[in-house]
Amino acid sequence: MYIPTFDDVKTARERIEPYVHKTPVLTSTFMNNLTGAELFFKCENFQKAGAFKVRGASNAVFGLSDEMAEKGVATHSSGNHALSLSYAAGRRGIPCHVVMPRTAPQAKKDAVIGYGGTITECEPSTSSREAVFAEVQAATGADFVHPYNDPRVIAGQATCSLELLEQTGGLDAVVAPIGGGGMISGTCLSLSNVAPETKIYAAEPKNADDAYRSFKAGHIIADDAPETVADGLKVPLKDLTWHFVSNHVTDIQTATEQEIIDAMKLIWQRMKIVMEPSSAVPLATIIKNREAFAGKRVGVIITGGNVDLDKLPWMKK
Amino acid sequence: MYIPTFDDVKTARERIEPYVHKTPVLTSTFMNNLTGAELFFKCENFQKAGAFKVRGASNAVFGLSDEMAEKGVATHSSGNHALSLSYAAGRRGIPCHVVMPRTAPQAKKDAVIGYGGTITECEPSTSSREAVFAEVQAATGADFVHPYNDPRVIAGQATCSLELLEQTGGLDAVVAPIGGGGMISGTCLSLSNVAPETKIYAAEPKNADDAYRSFKAGHIIADDAPETVADGLKVPLKDLTWHFVSNHVTDIQTATEQEIIDAMKLIWQRMKIVMEPSSAVPLATIIKNREAFAGKRVGVIITGGNVDLDKLPWMKK
Repeated sequence: MYIPTFDDVKTARERIEPYVHKTPVLTSTFMNNLTGAELFFKCENFQKAGAFKVRGASNAVFGLSDEMAEKGVATHSSGNHALSLSYAAGRRGIPCHVVMPRTAPQAKKDAVIGYGGTITECEPSTSSREAVFAEVQAATGADFVHPYNDPRVIAGQATCSLELLEQTGGLDAVVAPIGGGGMISGTCLSLSNVAPETKIYAAEPKNADDAYRSFKAGHIIADDAPETVADGLKVPLKDLTWHFVSNHVTDIQTATEQEIIDAMKLIWQRMKIVMEPSSAVPLATIIKNREAFAGKRVGVIITGGNVDLDKLPWMKK
Repeated sequence: MYIPTFDDVKTARERIEPYVHKTPVLTSTFMNNLTGAELFFKCENFQKAGAFKVRGASNAVFGLSDEMAEKGVATHSSGNHALSLSYAAGRRGIPCHVVMPRTAPQAKKDAVIGYGGTITECEPSTSSREAVFAEVQAATGADFVHPYNDPRVIAGQATCSLELLEQTGGLDAVVAPIGGGGMISGTCLSLSNVAPETKIYAAEPKNADDAYRSFKAGHIIADDAPETVADGLKVPLKDLTWHFVSNHVTDIQTATEQEIIDAMKLIWQRMKIVMEPSSAVPLATIIKNREAFAGKRVGVIITGGNVDLDKLPWMKK
């Protein structure tokens, strides 16, 4: 297991700079009054391909030697990593093979194809996904870019909190959502090097609180297919992300489904931005844990904005 | 009739600076590819109180002498002007009296009260509104700030395109929605002085195309209660706004209800911002009139972001 270093982050930043946005940081008087904290929202919903994942994906794609790049990249994902890897591969002009469950939303499939990716469908089970992915990789020789348990991906995601820190001039804490732990690991990697006094909080849906339980137990606990509106946060920690979480995270806090939906709607209403349910979990936990954040300068990572406008969580089914 | 001058705009800009945001200008590769133009979206949905109207309202409120200010301000509006005037009056610490139809959405009433405004309800008819408003004004002596047919309001709105021009470094055209004509008049006032070569296009719902028909006929035509999803654009031109429209507007273009809704959804999906149906009319007309805009640098005014998230126009009723 190679653990990425801060030098890898510096390399990543330079490498991906032409392919990603330096996203804006928004503030809101309303949100500050509500929470008693001074909040700085890092808006990765405005990022290329609509999510922070394009940072890690671009770092992996543009770090390949020409020889390796020729065979392309491959991954399994039905979410933002699939879009982001397709985007990055498209920018480099190399193939991108994505294994997706046949049940994945058509909009996501269309987006992958729109960026030039190739989809191979599997059944919606882990065994089918692994079997199909192994076939695709054997047939193509493409380089596997894991959605989060990959040092190149973590070094790429780490560029986000580095920017945030520079844009705000210093923070007491950063709160980011946790699923597999790619964004949180990147945040740990950057902040432990350049701002070790800044506390790092992970925000997780109560319905998918495997990271919370892992953190309390001191070892990885993986759930089988949890159900939450924050669909980007269902996946479990892996060895590399567990390394960062167990060593650098101050605390993991959870929010209920209703708290997540309420926080999401509040952000849309008051800040006028479109973002995903996963990105609302940090605000939900900040509202709940006022004592941890009031009076502090707090960075909040809005991780992505790819949401189905026809299926918003507050719409009647 | 006093016609505001560019000196009034400069005064307004200085006067309102502490109370309004310098809103960001967003660009989108997707939208540029779609239209063939280089689009610059001026995001007044991120403005204080959620709309550009706060510029004109603040200019009126903070331009009052202390003696006049004591009695407060008054208006009739069930939309963004009511919110904006309440916000501005609240910042100055003076009363704000708003006459609203009793049928207005509770959310709008709550917002006015939240900013410290006082609501007097009328029946949803012009005669009732005028009668109730006359009573309120007689009882309070408050200064009437018309939503758009007021030189102070127009000078305030004019600061928006002035900013846009500076932020972009020059434009071939600006497209803004037209209802009563306050924003368009302000745009005409600024651009005719500092960038007379920049063309000004007004975008209007086909269902409420009284400005379009006025423009073609050469005199004001006012419709009685047109119905459109772009609910900020139902009101007719008045003498002061007609002056600017008839003298400085290059063309008025219209869009159907479906075109407006499609453009709105596209902006939400691709640009990840929450904005009102009224603000989508410019993009709808730009898509329709490719020949007028392709190859040009075009400013697009996103006028506001106050939308009911439970009643989005693409939701099933």
